[in-house]
Amino acid sequence: MTKNTNIRISLPAVCVVWQIAMIILFGVFIRYDEESDAHWIEHMKEENISSHMENDFYYRYPSFQDVHVMIFVGFGFLMTFLKRYSFGAVGFNFLIAAFGIQWALLMQGWFHSFDKEDWKIKIGIENLINADFCVAGCLIAYGALLGKVSPVQLMVLTLFGVTLFAVEEYIILELLHVKDAGGSMVIHTFGAYYGLTISWVLYRPNLFQSKRLQGSVYHSDVFAIIGTLFLWMFWPSFNSAIADHGDGQHRAAINTYLALAASVLTTFAISSFSQKHGKLDMVHIQNATLAGGVAMGTVSEFMITPYGSLIVGFCTGIISTFGYWFLTPFMEKTLKIQDTCGIHNLHAMPGVLGGIVGAITAAAASESVYGREGLINTFDFKEATANRTVNVQGGYQAAGLCVAIAFGLIGGALVGGILKLPIWGDPADANCFEDEVYWELPDDEGDNISVSVHSNINHVRSMPPELYERNNQ
Amino acid sequence: MTKNTNIRISLPAVCVVWQIAMIILFGVFIRYDEESDAHWIEHMKEENISSHMENDFYYRYPSFQDVHVMIFVGFGFLMTFLKRYSFGAVGFNFLIAAFGIQWALLMQGWFHSFDKEDWKIKIGIENLINADFCVAGCLIAYGALLGKVSPVQLMVLTLFGVTLFAVEEYIILELLHVKDAGGSMVIHTFGAYYGLTISWVLYRPNLFQSKRLQGSVYHSDVFAIIGTLFLWMFWPSFNSAIADHGDGQHRAAINTYLALAASVLTTFAISSFSQKHGKLDMVHIQNATLAGGVAMGTVSEFMITPYGSLIVGFCTGIISTFGYWFLTPFMEKTLKIQDTCGIHNLHAMPGVLGGIVGAITAAAASESVYGREGLINTFDFKEATANRTVNVQGGYQAAGLCVAIAFGLIGGALVGGILKLPIWGDPADANCFEDEVYWELPDDEGDNISVSVHSNINHVRSMPPELYERNNQ
Amino acid sequence: MTKNTNIRISLPAVCVVWQIAMIILFGVFIRYDEESDAHWIEHMKEENISSHMENDFYYRYPSFQDVHVMIFVGFGFLMTFLKRYSFGAVGFNFLIAAFGIQWALLMQGWFHSFDKEDWKIKIGIENLINADFCVAGCLIAYGALLGKVSPVQLMVLTLFGVTLFAVEEYIILELLHVKDAGGSMVIHTFGAYYGLTISWVLYRPNLFQSKRLQGSVYHSDVFAIIGTLFLWMFWPSFNSAIADHGDGQHRAAINTYLALAASVLTTFAISSFSQKHGKLDMVHIQNATLAGGVAMGTVSEFMITPYGSLIVGFCTGIISTFGYWFLTPFMEKTLKIQDTCGIHNLHAMPGVLGGIVGAITAAAASESVYGREGLINTFDFKEATANRTVNVQGGYQAAGLCVAIAFGLIGGALVGGILKLPIWGDPADANCFEDEVYWELPDDEGDNISVSVHSNINHVRSMPPELYERNNQ
Repeated sequence: MTKNTNIRISLPAVCVVWQIAMIILFGVFIRYDEESDAHWIEHMKEENISSHMENDFYYRYPSFQDVHVMIFVGFGFLMTFLKRYSFGAVGFNFLIAAFGIQWALLMQGWFHSFDKEDWKIKIGIENLINADFCVAGCLIAYGALLGKVSPVQLMVLTLFGVTLFAVEEYIILELLHVKDAGGSMVIHTFGAYYGLTISWVLYRPNLFQSKRLQGSVYHSDVFAIIGTLFLWMFWPSFNSAIADHGDGQHRAAINTYLALAASVLTTFAISSFSQKHGKLDMVHIQNATLAGGVAMGTVSEFMITPYGSLIVGFCTGIISTFGYWFLTPFMEKTLKIQDTCGIHNLHAMPGVLGGIVGAITAAAASESVYGREGLINTFDFKEATANRTVNVQGGYQAAGLCVAIAFGLIGGALVGGILKLPIWGDPADANCFEDEVYWELPDDEGDNISVSVHSNINHVRSMPPELYERNNQ
Repeated sequence: MTKNTNIRISLPAVCVVWQIAMIILFGVFIRYDEESDAHWIEHMKEENISSHMENDFYYRYPSFQDVHVMIFVGFGFLMTFLKRYSFGAVGFNFLIAAFGIQWALLMQGWFHSFDKEDWKIKIGIENLINADFCVAGCLIAYGALLGKVSPVQLMVLTLFGVTLFAVEEYIILELLHVKDAGGSMVIHTFGAYYGLTISWVLYRPNLFQSKRLQGSVYHSDVFAIIGTLFLWMFWPSFNSAIADHGDGQHRAAINTYLALAASVLTTFAISSFSQKHGKLDMVHIQNATLAGGVAMGTVSEFMITPYGSLIVGFCTGIISTFGYWFLTPFMEKTLKIQDTCGIHNLHAMPGVLGGIVGAITAAAASESVYGREGLINTFDFKEATANRTVNVQGGYQAAGLCVAIAFGLIGGALVGGILKLPIWGDPADANCFEDEVYWELPDDEGDNISVSVHSNINHVRSMPPELYERNNQ
Repeated sequence: MTKNTNIRISLPAVCVVWQIAMIILFGVFIRYDEESDAHWIEHMKEENISSHMENDFYYRYPSFQDVHVMIFVGFGFLMTFLKRYSFGAVGFNFLIAAFGIQWALLMQGWFHSFDKEDWKIKIGIENLINADFCVAGCLIAYGALLGKVSPVQLMVLTLFGVTLFAVEEYIILELLHVKDAGGSMVIHTFGAYYGLTISWVLYRPNLFQSKRLQGSVYHSDVFAIIGTLFLWMFWPSFNSAIADHGDGQHRAAINTYLALAASVLTTFAISSFSQKHGKLDMVHIQNATLAGGVAMGTVSEFMITPYGSLIVGFCTGIISTFGYWFLTPFMEKTLKIQDTCGIHNLHAMPGVLGGIVGAITAAAASESVYGREGLINTFDFKEATANRTVNVQGGYQAAGLCVAIAFGLIGGALVGGILKLPIWGDPADANCFEDEVYWELPDDEGDNISVSVHSNINHVRSMPPELYERNNQ
């Protein structure tokens, strides 16, 4: 069975048709919000706002840019570790993120920023951050499928993934009034189970045929560390980007910084311990060091205390590294889930843990720790939830986690079924993890030629090129 | 004809003499402005400024740092794609940008920040951003010449390029009162035609002699994507960095974000469609995805609406990719313009389009859309231009575009003539695109040795080094 | 003599035990400060703070993230230049920085942020920046030892290094009331002499046995430029991160930007001049271009004037490049100091110069230049130092430099002695600069296999490979 991987019609068609759809929908629905509209200066006077600094842009733009780097360089380069799939890793990540953020602005806009007076979605900087967050779920899912799907499948995965995300997020944040500023549940848990379920549906029993391509090479591993580090460094911005102004953003950054630091130490510890001679495994370092950031997604704006953050990072570093050591091979053999990047260890387990820690921390909150107003602000105990106790909030947090898992599993099964159709141009088992399938590749032999040739440069100059080329072979 | 590429006297001489000139000119002319001077705290009291936050530093510093990354990592790494010119790409980019920003502070300072009371230029954070913008024009021009010129030529190109830029910018922004916050015209159009004209003057009919070096290798392409992504991610900061405080910066970031996202989708579409088997071409992805940012340079702070931004990105992605597909080979063959990085497709065409879109959008502006004050603020209809109508403004915008093109063409012809003199140490045709010419290169064979040697490490230890070395050959 | 480099027990033990110690100490001592605590909203009302923008988070967070990138990507990638030590460079940098920032929060907290009322250290964003600064000292020291020590030794180096740093910093900043916002003395001078002294104690006379691994390869040099550039671009944030709000931060950024630009030009000049054919040496470009930033650490917030900054950058670029050219080989042969990254040229000499320039600039300060209040603010002439003259301040600045050097030398000798114990798993002379010792490495032969194999992709599926190969051509 030779598969047809020619996407010359399908990929351009999907890209162009969907982009046109975006333009039409944006034309009908999307406008600037108060703070990005040219009427802002009049608005300032009406509302007695004394300084442009109060424009939300200045509160959130630095964090937004950090998140943006995480989405495009962080996620993209983290997946470049395979020896011959760096183009696909960073390139398809680029494609689906660029599409996903547009669709997310619409989907999230309808649920969160819809102005019923004029039937428009009003967007500002916070919407851009949320759109980046939303595609993060799909990029996580891509991690499980890396190298085994076509770009057209990834576009479909993103279309449905963003849609599911927006609904799930609406239920968790707006209906259940759950707090999840950094998305342990909404982003990581959902994204990971979505991707793992799709991978389970698309199980390839003969994937060993491309085994020669499943490893890394030295420099591809170094590229992947670029992704790791930009994710690691900017995760405090990720978890604080849409937290409350003032102490909320401040605390979220500190907590995340600490949890991540602790993850690094336990990851190095378990990684060294996992090998006979105590040698470190780069796969662990590239991934499990980030687990603390995932697990702090829900809880980072709470008063979890600095040592609480260290404990969370400590545990997730261990769990995640053990996952890479034991669970990934187990899942592939027993559960028939092929998880290229090990998202189960980096996103699913730490995400679920983050949701649980969030529920416990919320249930344990008190006025003495938060202050009366601080408690109301942090958990948003206003209007519909003005009478909630912290215990009830804890229960709702746990319910939110279940919703995220359910959406991941059910959504993944449905979308997996769609992606199984034999029309999407996915690669044959022996061609997986191979950029050659979807990319015009440079001829790397050329590299050696350049080295060997420049010694006889002088005699090249006066020769016609055809002759030269022949001469040189 | 063997060329002399020894720059041991000329490069150090140019660097040291020019740097000393900078020190003297800075000593005579440049001082801190009100907000970076230690008198600021007294100034605050005089002007009743209540918070340090009102210091322009806090409005612009995050954007400045993003722009700084675009100049040095973005432009630098974008050009590392050639298999043996990564040192020259990122290294010479570093050199000329570091020189250019100093000269730009002086040139732009004389025109824009000159205090006639004490005959000093007063600089603050906005001057640093403008200096970075100014050298961007020269770095764009370098893209056309990559691999074919000596660092001394590049220094000359930058000296004149910055000078021309400052004059052109003064005419467009100060005399014609044209708006161009992100520099579609002032930076991209000027820079591209400046570089293309120089390349045309320096045409090398026998460039095929270095054909073996004109391609990429796998990992050099991955390095180049780093440049692409940092440019792509931070372009919203580029276009908003010197926009008006408040809604101006906010809107510029949103519009640019959207246009760039749309460019990605149409670039992938056309790239896949351009190849027989639908395979993607990394050259397109590395470059044309950025076209939306270039084209939004003028218009990003206007009320172009979100869907308007998507349309601009949609069109420029298509145009730019088609440029790489058809125009670059055509220009080389027919017009004798050798454009290494394809700046015509990435900067010239989208820049011109951006200027035109800017003129149309300005002419179509109205009080109902902008609000009375918003319109005045956005287009700066004050003092000299208080009576301008939007139609007149549109006309001036178009005139500004013509000035940018004219400066690029005429300036490029003049500077090209200077660079044609046989004194600059440029490489022979067969040595183009070759780092060996200007850099001490590591011996890459060493890499393989390291792999093969460590298996016989044990017997190495007890041997004298001379013996070992012999043994290993 | 074959050394035992198995760290399967020691590394995990150190990591886990120390991380648990951190958790306990954080539990006992560390809490949120006023601005990151949920009581902030009540605090705002009490103190009549009108806007969340006044939270220090918004003054410092963008600079913090830039510093964070310098620590993890900047320092990490700068050291990836060796052909086979990229994993160790960036990986161990990651490990010790993640540990060091935790220990630094405690050590610096006890000295600077200790609340005697409730015996707690209160942390906010400024503490995170200072913790990053503190580990920078240890990362500099790592530069001298790169490739010759085990990760366990590095953990020990960091434990003591952070401790020494905190004491030295307390003496210089709090007892002597010396100004050193960017740490020319406190960070660079101390860190460099600390590392150089350790390297001198650990001198390896037979290091030539790993000579084959001491060079770079083409792509490892390109990776290292990533480190260079992120350090270079973000150095203005480093020197301004903890400067005074307002003009202090503003001026520090401008001065550093200028000094760095001047360093680039003189580095290129001397580098080209140092080689017979005028070819540039990538080692110089990667390192000496940064010397201006180091030297501006003390003086960047002073009114040194823009041309003064250029002069500092001009001189340090020259000195640093000459260091790489002459001093490094001299030090290795004559002084028996093996300095892998040349930190003597990048940190020690420019750091000392920065301290001296700081002393002179402080002594030359005047009310006419700073304004009455500006002078008090800049040099913090309040309370204990209210009666200091600028000359006295200059003397104290010079004393601070001596303290930094003394701590580096004495601390380095002590720690070097500890690290000489034969229990830490350091590599044998012939295995230095070799990732193989501490890392599971991918099999790079695989890379070539992948190239040759993908032409015969079909065969894997159902055919024996030989047959397929024929079939597919």
